Amino acid sequence: MNVEGVPRRSIRPADDGRSVEIIDQTRLPHDFSIRKLASVDDVVVAISTMQVRGAPLIGAAAAYGLCLQAQVDASDAAIDAAAEVLRATRPTAVNLAWALGEVLAAMRGVPESEREAAAWRCAAGICDDDVAACRAIGEHGVRLIEAVWEQQDRRRPVEVLTHCNAGWLATVDWGTALAPIYVAQERGIDVHVWVDETRPRNQGAGLTTWELLQQGIPHTLIADNVGGHLMQHGRVDLCITGSDRTTATGDVCNKIGTYLKAVAARDNDVPFYVALPCSTIDWSLSDGLAQIPIEERDGNEVRRVAGRSDDGRTLEVEILPEGSPVANFAFDVTPARLVTGLVTERGICEASRQGLATLYPERS
Amino acid sequence: MNVEGVPRRSIRPADDGRSVEIIDQTRLPHDFSIRKLASVDDVVVAISTMQVRGAPLIGAAAAYGLCLQAQVDASDAAIDAAAEVLRATRPTAVNLAWALGEVLAAMRGVPESEREAAAWRCAAGICDDDVAACRAIGEHGVRLIEAVWEQQDRRRPVEVLTHCNAGWLATVDWGTALAPIYVAQERGIDVHVWVDETRPRNQGAGLTTWELLQQGIPHTLIADNVGGHLMQHGRVDLCITGSDRTTATGDVCNKIGTYLKAVAARDNDVPFYVALPCSTIDWSLSDGLAQIPIEERDGNEVRRVAGRSDDGRTLEVEILPEGSPVANFAFDVTPARLVTGLVTERGICEASRQGLATLYPERS
Repeated sequence: MNVEGVPRRSIRPADDGRSVEIIDQTRLPHDFSIRKLASVDDVVVAISTMQVRGAPLIGAAAAYGLCLQAQVDASDAAIDAAAEVLRATRPTAVNLAWALGEVLAAMRGVPESEREAAAWRCAAGICDDDVAACRAIGEHGVRLIEAVWEQQDRRRPVEVLTHCNAGWLATVDWGTALAPIYVAQERGIDVHVWVDETRPRNQGAGLTTWELLQQGIPHTLIADNVGGHLMQHGRVDLCITGSDRTTATGDVCNKIGTYLKAVAARDNDVPFYVALPCSTIDWSLSDGLAQIPIEERDGNEVRRVAGRSDDGRTLEVEILPEGSPVANFAFDVTPARLVTGLVTERGICEASRQGLATLYPERS
Repeated sequence: MNVEGVPRRSIRPADDGRSVEIIDQTRLPHDFSIRKLASVDDVVVAISTMQVRGAPLIGAAAAYGLCLQAQVDASDAAIDAAAEVLRATRPTAVNLAWALGEVLAAMRGVPESEREAAAWRCAAGICDDDVAACRAIGEHGVRLIEAVWEQQDRRRPVEVLTHCNAGWLATVDWGTALAPIYVAQERGIDVHVWVDETRPRNQGAGLTTWELLQQGIPHTLIADNVGGHLMQHGRVDLCITGSDRTTATGDVCNKIGTYLKAVAARDNDVPFYVALPCSTIDWSLSDGLAQIPIEERDGNEVRRVAGRSDDGRTLEVEILPEGSPVANFAFDVTPARLVTGLVTERGICEASRQGLATLYPERS
């Protein structure tokens, strides 16, 4: 999507042919800053510190990590060790393991001397597939928005609430939850987005707002506490979020706080949709609450808030008294019973094993 | 309660006999700073900028505002005008109007020359009554905590989740939601409090943590997004919040985000209690969602986060990109159907007209 009017992807091979360019998402929204990753270690740092984040983008970055490894040592031992380190960076998203598996398989099939080229090809394919999947999610999901738009005779913007950032910055391009919104804009449908701030890391405040501003889409930031109030007063037509891991039964593990919005949506008869490429589906799982490991991150993410001071510096301030402990769970699980539907690259289905079987018969 | 081991109230007449001392709550948790209010204007600023906040404390502060007016001009016109300005400072809490009414009535009954003394007596009475009511709320509410403690054979701390600050800083002393916790501590019951950060003004992060630290009560700060996840995993025994306005039918208007916790508590069979002195009950209302005006505050409260920088200064940082609009609703309404019970100074009752009638037969 656009950055100051120029289309760009969130990750791409650099012109030097030896490194990868990312947008340092920890610097947004105040600084648009490109970083070059030249080694596996660079990729590990970029994922761990969330310079890149979002399940699909983490997968793409990890895939490129193996390319960077292959250009220095493509032996089985070296690529397996690199994959192990990359896999350990974030425990919740399943795309990470999936993307690593794809690149490893591509390399294993060819002699060592050809592995680097195979890895770059595979990583590029993962990225292109992600872009196509996200665009398809947008094409399917826009029908939900269009239906509301027509139902109300195009009299007012369709009000969509989203949590965290499941936009193009979380993927390679287009995004998952935001893809239907971008397609709606192409089609001239008026949309207004309620953007959850998404504490503690403020991906809504810092990334989703930035994306929507760059794209010229009307939006309003709200504290995470506000969505229920808006739903009670009929000011949300539908919710759309992304997913970091989806079970074969339709449970959705996504950014902490997603569950609270889903349960409020149910209480107010507001449709709650989750948009995801099938790479986030973990077909081995049937119970999200019991089976998905929830990452606990450093308490400083809660304790310290990053922003721009009045003198223009980007810095962090501490909001807690010294001595108060913090718990920082990064994700929660929304049970399938609270999900109105899943929007995937193949269409929209019920959040259930049966629903997913209609779109992915080969897995059922 | 204690500040560095010394008991203190959140508001009190100053030794000079001509002004009132408050704790500037916008400076906490990093600076404990006492401010003197010497005029109605000072009180209006203190309430509007939330140097004092919390429904009961707002009522007490407004009462003292009329005392400060009476010492310069106690004519009907002057005190009515002052009451009008004070009443307009915050639209949601009902104690404000109630306390102003009490002091006005006390002054109207006596000659102009005696009005100042009558006002000071009435304001002191409002404060003493509030302290007694909050202590009584603690005595009644502790039974809920004690029951969990006994039920689990005192093997682990009782886990209480609270939202915003309904502690002694929100009242004159003891607090509402936190009063049962302070009484539990006196009785040797182990309690651990999950403290919601409470964006946008971070009353949980800045005030509730500070109170609990000063009192030596174990607690953990969490982002507002986390409570649902904890409930899903059995890590919350009960929720207790305060109330800014309660309808005669038991609907509760409280800090924005309270409703999200209540609906999650219901989804997980976690009891959800609301603690309140009867001064927050608006007997004229029967439908909180339709009838209670919800204050919308300045978007800068969301846009800017206050904290301490690494060089020790207290400052604000901006977390949004320039150009993104903000909506800042300060309260929401939790329907009575989601409230397990109301804890008042007279006991615990069902959140319904019938329940309140058992405690307040004179109003039914």
